[in-house]
Amino acid sequence: MTVTVGLGPGIFDGRFGLANKKPAHLAQIPDLPSDNLAAATTGGDLSLQACADDPQVAYHAIRDLARMARGTATVRWTVLGFGRASAGKNQTTPRNLMGFKDGTRNITSDADYDEFVWLGDSAGWMAGGTYQVVRKIEMNIEIWDADVISDQQRVFGRTKVDGAPLSGGSEHTTPDFHAKAGGELKIDPRSHVSLAAHEHHGGVKILRRPYNYTDGLNQYGQLDAGLLFTAYMNDPEHFTRIQTRLGSSDRLNEYISHIGSAVFAVPPAPRAGEYIGQALFR
Amino acid sequence: MTVTVGLGPGIFDGRFGLANKKPAHLAQIPDLPSDNLAAATTGGDLSLQACADDPQVAYHAIRDLARMARGTATVRWTVLGFGRASAGKNQTTPRNLMGFKDGTRNITSDADYDEFVWLGDSAGWMAGGTYQVVRKIEMNIEIWDADVISDQQRVFGRTKVDGAPLSGGSEHTTPDFHAKAGGELKIDPRSHVSLAAHEHHGGVKILRRPYNYTDGLNQYGQLDAGLLFTAYMNDPEHFTRIQTRLGSSDRLNEYISHIGSAVFAVPPAPRAGEYIGQALFR
Repeated sequence: MTVTVGLGPGIFDGRFGLANKKPAHLAQIPDLPSDNLAAATTGGDLSLQACADDPQVAYHAIRDLARMARGTATVRWTVLGFGRASAGKNQTTPRNLMGFKDGTRNITSDADYDEFVWLGDSAGWMAGGTYQVVRKIEMNIEIWDADVISDQQRVFGRTKVDGAPLSGGSEHTTPDFHAKAGGELKIDPRSHVSLAAHEHHGGVKILRRPYNYTDGLNQYGQLDAGLLFTAYMNDPEHFTRIQTRLGSSDRLNEYISHIGSAVFAVPPAPRAGEYIGQALFR
Repeated sequence: MTVTVGLGPGIFDGRFGLANKKPAHLAQIPDLPSDNLAAATTGGDLSLQACADDPQVAYHAIRDLARMARGTATVRWTVLGFGRASAGKNQTTPRNLMGFKDGTRNITSDADYDEFVWLGDSAGWMAGGTYQVVRKIEMNIEIWDADVISDQQRVFGRTKVDGAPLSGGSEHTTPDFHAKAGGELKIDPRSHVSLAAHEHHGGVKILRRPYNYTDGLNQYGQLDAGLLFTAYMNDPEHFTRIQTRLGSSDRLNEYISHIGSAVFAVPPAPRAGEYIGQALFR
């Protein structure tokens, strides 16, 4: 099991005498196009992400930490995620609840981690840490399931079975966003894969680590499920930049809704004998 | 993956011309002591239980079956369970969200399956089938966590670490409900293990197959979690008898609440070339 701890902007708002330690890039995510945020699944001063092979282990960790914090902190919102969507190093790419492979182009190399995820020495006490962006993304499952596969593939810009870009090749072939057939781009410029591509964001990448979730049924009796999108990056503005474009134009927006949002600074892992965030109190 | 299909009492209420095929013991579970049922998690004409090692596989099955049924049936309630609490044959006993081993005395022998689970030839088209009782049981996690271990052990009648009965021995030692220490019964007669014991119900056993669940937070901001109790038996009255006693006297009632209830007839597995419940339409 791993537990990742994040500190929200509220930790540095003056209540705790830590305003002068505020991480340089920690600020609320601004309102973004297509946002449909619910207060009940937005914000928070602390983030706890427990990951384990057995959900019971993860649940127990969160609940025990919540118990220890009683009287000091309360639980604002929780999500039980399952079946991580994005692949990591040496993993095959899992699928999200839309049935598509998710995470084919995720960060895996040490060089990319160093360039896009970890904070360098200039970050002061946050050196070796990162930022965490969390978005709860509801999927309109019934509507998606009623769509034909050819349109679903157009929405993503990839094939459903293999995850190959519609410009050709196999899953890990680099998409060719200029390839045409019959005068039309093979990968729709409003497809998810195109709008999210680092080639269209000045080469900026983020580390995605999303999980599927289900909350049973919604108020309309429809399946209430989606993706708990969690991503790590050395500047949350990188997410903002990507989501600004996705929220404006993504063909996927017909089938999803961003209902939750939060941002946190993740302190570096503690050295032996130290505790998480110890440098914050020096 | 396995999918288990159940037919609720409503299937045989005359709407579908099947009133004369109603399984002999299929009837709504009566109101029971301590019941706190919510309409939103009670009843239903069909039950679908999908079990798999990967929750995404189970979720996909339920959602695809719901999709195929669109226009004919709608989803009434769903629960995503994890970490089956009761052990089966050759499995170590897992723990429920109260941290105790759950299922130590569960049915495992073929003889017990034949005597208490499967319906015999006298059941007509249901021969080889069984009944399924489902109860959604909310746990007051924070209150439970605030209790001392010695009291938690008294509530269950077992030790928390090993799951041994408080009358002594190890996990699989048969509890001695008459053993005393200092004039007091070692296993509290109002403990869960004592009230649920088949010795106290005329030897009647049921096959338990419960799962943990979490629904995030409740309206009071407390952890909303518990046990989706699912059990199989050849007469739902066996459950009613056991729960009548538990609902009246169980020390555990301080920490749990039965918020959902349903009963179903489970047709026998189809023979090669047949479909589930085919005998029902002959």
